[in-house]
Amino acid sequence: MSAVSTPPVTPTPARRDAEATRAAILKAARHLLARHAHADITLKAVAERAGVSPPLILKYFGNKDTLFARVMSFESDATALLSAPLEELGPHMVRHVLVSQSEQGADPLLRIVFAPLHGERGDILRANFRTQVTGRLTGRLTGVDAALRAELAVATLLGLGVMYGIARGTEVRASTVDALVDRYAPAVQAHLTP
Amino acid sequence: MSAVSTPPVTPTPARRDAEATRAAILKAARHLLARHAHADITLKAVAERAGVSPPLILKYFGNKDTLFARVMSFESDATALLSAPLEELGPHMVRHVLVSQSEQGADPLLRIVFAPLHGERGDILRANFRTQVTGRLTGRLTGVDAALRAELAVATLLGLGVMYGIARGTEVRASTVDALVDRYAPAVQAHLTP
Repeated sequence: MSAVSTPPVTPTPARRDAEATRAAILKAARHLLARHAHADITLKAVAERAGVSPPLILKYFGNKDTLFARVMSFESDATALLSAPLEELGPHMVRHVLVSQSEQGADPLLRIVFAPLHGERGDILRANFRTQVTGRLTGRLTGVDAALRAELAVATLLGLGVMYGIARGTEVRASTVDALVDRYAPAVQAHLTP
Repeated sequence: MSAVSTPPVTPTPARRDAEATRAAILKAARHLLARHAHADITLKAVAERAGVSPPLILKYFGNKDTLFARVMSFESDATALLSAPLEELGPHMVRHVLVSQSEQGADPLLRIVFAPLHGERGDILRANFRTQVTGRLTGRLTGVDAALRAELAVATLLGLGVMYGIARGTEVRASTVDALVDRYAPAVQAHLTP
């Protein structure tokens, strides 16, 4: 399951290569950040895993700090996750999590679970998560306890990501996306539009 | 928040000390396993964190392998998690996760999220989780798709554990257990008794 297998639509070949390379580097950095403390990860290790040279990482991302700042941001993932009308947002988010995991081997939110690995940088991850994910979702909601409801909706999604991507639950992996959306999304939607 | 603060009921002083020491060692091992690869964790590091001597760990747990096998088992946690009649099991499990986190600083299930850190031993953690948690819950359920419903109920609980214990969601942490059970447990119960 390579990031290269799902390129963006209709780019020129050169642009597609650049985007595939960027995606491969980001994916390698995410993989390593789920398994090693930030301080122990070298650019060389990211480059090896991505199948590129270290200078190419510098060309695309500047330095290790800017690369990891990019990996620790949920901004673009949250945009895709939240891009549906509120009354359909629960099913959209559940589907988005499942499709991201099954097709790209990545989850838009799951990086937050590796915060304990990264000491102080774990707090950056938490602060980003709060601002870029739960805070942004809160802004979409109306009614009482909007911020709490946003956290509980996101919690529900995180659990599905853990069960699918980390625990590798055999049943969720054997199910269709549609079946899982039908079963799981009502709980998410109930927090959004109670 | 020390494990010592919630000793088991009515032991003799010597027995209580032994149990508190065992609990402190297990808690230290769990803490380290959430932050470092299994291979990088020494008994000395566990001992230092628990405030005991390495030989005391050997006395209580035999060796590093048996200590970590104990930490990687969900058996006793699942017993407590599942100890309620099926028709009240959703609220019981949500409450149990929240009380374990807020009072003992530990979650009965959350260790599974650190599986990616531990290479092959991560697969032991996954296999234990499947047998001791989702499989055992499946055995309690009736009706169609019991195994899938068990995974989705557990997924929902895992998400709450991540939001509370790892993302440290400000709203869930500011809420009462009762309020969270009221809001969150219906989704869990819906998978158990649809």
